[in-house]
Amino acid sequence: MKKQRVGIQGELGAFSQEAARQLLGTGAEVIPYQRFEEVFRALERGKVDAAVIPIENTLAGSVHENYDHLLNFDVGIVAETSVRIVHNLIASPGVRFANIRKVYSHPVALSQCLRFFARNRKIERTPFYDTAGAVKMVMSERAPDAAAIASQVAAGIYGGRILKRSIEDDRHNFTRFFLLCRGRRAVRHNSKEQHWKTTLVFTTRNTPGALFRALSAFALRDISLTKIESRPLRGKPWEYLFYVDFLGREDDPGVQNALRHLAELADFLRVLGSYPKGG
Amino acid sequence: MKKQRVGIQGELGAFSQEAARQLLGTGAEVIPYQRFEEVFRALERGKVDAAVIPIENTLAGSVHENYDHLLNFDVGIVAETSVRIVHNLIASPGVRFANIRKVYSHPVALSQCLRFFARNRKIERTPFYDTAGAVKMVMSERAPDAAAIASQVAAGIYGGRILKRSIEDDRHNFTRFFLLCRGRRAVRHNSKEQHWKTTLVFTTRNTPGALFRALSAFALRDISLTKIESRPLRGKPWEYLFYVDFLGREDDPGVQNALRHLAELADFLRVLGSYPKGG
Repeated sequence: MKKQRVGIQGELGAFSQEAARQLLGTGAEVIPYQRFEEVFRALERGKVDAAVIPIENTLAGSVHENYDHLLNFDVGIVAETSVRIVHNLIASPGVRFANIRKVYSHPVALSQCLRFFARNRKIERTPFYDTAGAVKMVMSERAPDAAAIASQVAAGIYGGRILKRSIEDDRHNFTRFFLLCRGRRAVRHNSKEQHWKTTLVFTTRNTPGALFRALSAFALRDISLTKIESRPLRGKPWEYLFYVDFLGREDDPGVQNALRHLAELADFLRVLGSYPKGG
Repeated sequence: MKKQRVGIQGELGAFSQEAARQLLGTGAEVIPYQRFEEVFRALERGKVDAAVIPIENTLAGSVHENYDHLLNFDVGIVAETSVRIVHNLIASPGVRFANIRKVYSHPVALSQCLRFFARNRKIERTPFYDTAGAVKMVMSERAPDAAAIASQVAAGIYGGRILKRSIEDDRHNFTRFFLLCRGRRAVRHNSKEQHWKTTLVFTTRNTPGALFRALSAFALRDISLTKIESRPLRGKPWEYLFYVDFLGREDDPGVQNALRHLAELADFLRVLGSYPKGG
């Protein structure tokens, strides 16, 4: 059987690859792209069979760029997962922690491990282009006094040894990822999953109470929202885009009624997908 | 008169400094800190008189970390502003664009200028710790073939010359900043500002319709929301924190009624400040 090809943004060993593994197992071939837009285009044009993209991080917030791409490309959400962002100190096998003097990683990762550097003042923080690439470089140079900060997956790919696990300052650091397919795929009616979520986007005029009326479509049918976020529409001051996630499946009769009701109240409405509720 | 001291996160020349200039003019002394938490602590302890912090970016979303700090430190919002994120190519005076072979900047800034690098294939992208620091380094080394990507303010501080303005891929790139003071300051009743905004945070149980009922406090009084965002509460699954901005001032009688009504419906409610609506 031909391997499924899945597009991600970033180097092999990036957290998106960990998400792809959680969603598809180890059998899929991961194809890295430099920019998110390239991942969406590759999926739309059939160069990959699926894509895994980050949609929000507990510290940094929603990735609005990817919500924009979800609207602009002909793709649908089919699954979700959360990856705990764990930063590990990784060096070549044989290198001892006591000898480490330089640590390479992406500046965001370095800045999320400040307590580690405060406790280890002999170690110099050195910015590098990305986390997984820093592991690759440290391994190829075989420097006896250098290490990288990256994911466990990156250590595995490049043969690095983890000297310290989970050195990040804040452990409540999770990123939520979507698995995307080409086009809008019908919900699998025969799925055994009990708990489903649906993601949609709608716009309203910014009249007082417009959002309140729109949410009545869910509240009147006892449908629970799990996320809501507003965003000003580009180039249209006073008009707003709302991203909403709710518990339920697009083909539930109650959800169908709620969507019809919301369509009456919204200027624009697009369901981006229904998918089993992830961990 | 003693200069006002204002804390920011990042190097001098960072976009927070541009926000501080928009909010306070050029008379304030900007004190840089490495981490956001340090900025809030410095303000709470009186080491600075004010602080300027980013709260959301049009591409990257809300900075949840700073919402957390707004709840955990005794500070209040007194003004807002938006800074257009413009990336400029900056070199030493006398350096010609045709000679540039290396460009240094923060990886996020480099990744927001990919079209520039696609058009100029002879130029190598080189990651650096931060945007303003890259300008400082390029200026001190006086390399005839090197440039940095950073803000106009950074060029001014370190004496760099702007070779190309606005080389970022996406011009809809804005960051919104808050000006903070120590404690909760009473709204200035004598202000001539006509348009005010108020930011608050509240929690509800995740029962269906809980958010809908909470928003009725605003909708029933024709108060317009300008931002709403939900966030799962740490360590309390199924409980949600909502950030809301609305048009109006905390001491308006209608707003006072709405806040009393919302307090009945919410488990927790905190007003973070009222401030003149910024551009």
